[in-house]
Amino acid sequence: MRAVDLIAKKRDGLPLAAEEIQWFIQAYTRGDVPDYQAAAFLMAVFIRGMSREETVNLTLAMAHSGDVLDLSDITDYAVDKHSSGGVGDKTTLVVLPLVASCGVPVAKMSGRGLGFSGGTLDKLESIAGYNVHLSNEDFRRLARQTGIVLSGQSHDLAPADGKLYALRDVTATVPCLPLIASSIMSKKIAAGANGIVLDVKVGRGAFMTNLDDARALAQIMVDIGTDAGRDMIAVLSDMNQPLGAAVGNALEMAEAITTLKGDGPADFREHCLVLAGYMLRLYGRGRQWTDESQIRQTLVEHLNDGRALAKFRQLVEAQGGDVRLVDDPALLPKASIVETYHAAQDGYIAQVAAEEIGMASFDLGAGREKKGDPVDLAVGLEVHVKVGDRVTAGAPLVTIHANDRQRVTACRSRLERAFAYSQTPVEPLPLFYGTLYGGRPTGS
Amino acid sequence: MRAVDLIAKKRDGLPLAAEEIQWFIQAYTRGDVPDYQAAAFLMAVFIRGMSREETVNLTLAMAHSGDVLDLSDITDYAVDKHSSGGVGDKTTLVVLPLVASCGVPVAKMSGRGLGFSGGTLDKLESIAGYNVHLSNEDFRRLARQTGIVLSGQSHDLAPADGKLYALRDVTATVPCLPLIASSIMSKKIAAGANGIVLDVKVGRGAFMTNLDDARALAQIMVDIGTDAGRDMIAVLSDMNQPLGAAVGNALEMAEAITTLKGDGPADFREHCLVLAGYMLRLYGRGRQWTDESQIRQTLVEHLNDGRALAKFRQLVEAQGGDVRLVDDPALLPKASIVETYHAAQDGYIAQVAAEEIGMASFDLGAGREKKGDPVDLAVGLEVHVKVGDRVTAGAPLVTIHANDRQRVTACRSRLERAFAYSQTPVEPLPLFYGTLYGGRPTGS
Repeated sequence: MRAVDLIAKKRDGLPLAAEEIQWFIQAYTRGDVPDYQAAAFLMAVFIRGMSREETVNLTLAMAHSGDVLDLSDITDYAVDKHSSGGVGDKTTLVVLPLVASCGVPVAKMSGRGLGFSGGTLDKLESIAGYNVHLSNEDFRRLARQTGIVLSGQSHDLAPADGKLYALRDVTATVPCLPLIASSIMSKKIAAGANGIVLDVKVGRGAFMTNLDDARALAQIMVDIGTDAGRDMIAVLSDMNQPLGAAVGNALEMAEAITTLKGDGPADFREHCLVLAGYMLRLYGRGRQWTDESQIRQTLVEHLNDGRALAKFRQLVEAQGGDVRLVDDPALLPKASIVETYHAAQDGYIAQVAAEEIGMASFDLGAGREKKGDPVDLAVGLEVHVKVGDRVTAGAPLVTIHANDRQRVTACRSRLERAFAYSQTPVEPLPLFYGTLYGGRPTGS
Repeated sequence: MRAVDLIAKKRDGLPLAAEEIQWFIQAYTRGDVPDYQAAAFLMAVFIRGMSREETVNLTLAMAHSGDVLDLSDITDYAVDKHSSGGVGDKTTLVVLPLVASCGVPVAKMSGRGLGFSGGTLDKLESIAGYNVHLSNEDFRRLARQTGIVLSGQSHDLAPADGKLYALRDVTATVPCLPLIASSIMSKKIAAGANGIVLDVKVGRGAFMTNLDDARALAQIMVDIGTDAGRDMIAVLSDMNQPLGAAVGNALEMAEAITTLKGDGPADFREHCLVLAGYMLRLYGRGRQWTDESQIRQTLVEHLNDGRALAKFRQLVEAQGGDVRLVDDPALLPKASIVETYHAAQDGYIAQVAAEEIGMASFDLGAGREKKGDPVDLAVGLEVHVKVGDRVTAGAPLVTIHANDRQRVTACRSRLERAFAYSQTPVEPLPLFYGTLYGGRPTGS
């Protein structure tokens, strides 16, 4: 096979066979197909699209471009989750210990933040000593010993995806559904998941800003997983306003711990309960986790009686983190400047623009512009209102945590743009817009 | 400006501004935009196309990516020609001396053959000693002294085109009209031409196999030249069968010399007279070359009375070639095996497939598969019939000139596919399918 012939086929909108896609991805991973050929290929895919079959084949080719984790000695059914990323999305920090506390092993690899989107690894590193770089052996050992492990992604998993993602970033080929879907799903499949819960965010603070696009992305991923023999549940969740109150690494960790203690913002707690419930349902066939109301009841109990928190403490300890920070989140990194941003007027909150809130936190130093940049773990925002809330002029809307006065100014002008008010009542935003299923029948 | 933003614009089908195209080409030429970004850009251009304005701007940006020849100290009006390439197309070897013999200075840069398409430089090198590598100074000096110079292309002319062409070749972005047209025209503009005659070949042995595509390419090039302030004439000429009889480097040189002596195949002689006539017409405004019939008469005279040949001899001598080979073409490189391919049956010749003839010559070693490969100057074919000719079984159709018996076998099976016969009379193929004009009014 010749790369140029496969590029020409896709250029002309002709379908690529499984072995052609496989050959291309393998040759690219080895370095036999250079970046410039892959770039032309990606642009052709961007414009011409890919069929469901092609997308599945691309995903499997990327998943098998390196090691594929076999977790069968740890669990007979590995369940994983993925979020498409947003502002204030610290869901993994709560959902994983919560699910693990129910006796379901969870071994997850997470990523770092980029732009105004946060990343689980950065949030975890606000706990001193927490080691996100685990060897394959340690990853497996911890999964087996404690039933929970949460680390960075191994370089040996889906290396083709890593290479292609970096190339897409500089060739204007990022916002393309088959490429986004195959990138996400290849990592999940390489990480050994049998069942996958996808949290596809939609709204101003998400990669997908409208519901149709988000649903299309979710459907493609569900289709890929289904065709690859995985069980799939995808939820479409709101990201027009931040999830929970905290935005920023240590602040989000503190909020996650509060939630694991049975408290925390209502929207975030509910979001975690739904996602954890779906993970249990996927895991549950032929076990105790089949009845929805029973699952819900158990999860609520585990948040309220400390079992979820105990599992999180166990995770932190196993990965070298300082458990005193779990016991007393006041010990987490603290910003030197703490200020309040007040409501400009009376009214109903009509908008808490997630992307502006995310950028405001980014402006404080909580995010990174490009891979490898450092982040300030202590800084960020606590947003005290949701769309639909009624406020009076001067009410505290946001607590700003900063380490640099100049950055506060930039942050405040972002916040000006984030909020909008209405003189008439405003409907609260929904948490979810729908659920998609794939693989074995739901609840069976 | 950022390359990725310009790629995204073109990806989405948005028009690029002149300064954006200029910036991209300059940055790519400098190496600041890497090949992988240029590859994504080229694919986006391939699929989304380019407007006339964008194509002109791309052409001008490439033309100005390096030196632009200023021939104003040699002539107040530089006239150039370009052929899109074909089988047996040795037109430049006759047209340039013919035009120069009329007192019109011609300073042309030519290329080498690739695949089954021949190149003027290879043909010139069948004359021992002929130097195609001239310094800029020597190029100008010879143009001034003898009124004719014929060399390879300087690396300093339109370097962006050289880089982009190499990249297109490996990224499946070659057959794209705006890219083809801008590549050709950027070199002509950089070479200092005021008036350009384009010989766009159409047919089985040409890059453009159908008339609509060829006409579209010709029109784009005429438009580019017109918008860039050049005078343009483009002819659409047949390349379903070879031009003239000789195919192969030394054989074509011999045929060119024969034609310069007032003899030669009728179709080739006529082709040369038409193209030379157009060059004189472009040059002619306000001079003696305005009257078509007078131009024609002069050209015929110069072929018949030896003035065109004398100018060619002067060219060869000035560039270090052995003029004895001009005086006696029997001294040109000779193949060791000379055989005849005979007509398989009685009938009218219905097909002399140019691409099969080209490949048959290629099979003998006359062509190169990739840039830099050596060619055998001596080998090739003489095709003695044209479509429409009546032959009897056993009549000599082709003389094969070879240096390797095994290659003769491959060549003969190509020839089997090249010819087709009809029992009823067959119309001869036309030489030309049309002419396009741009710039100042024709004949004015």
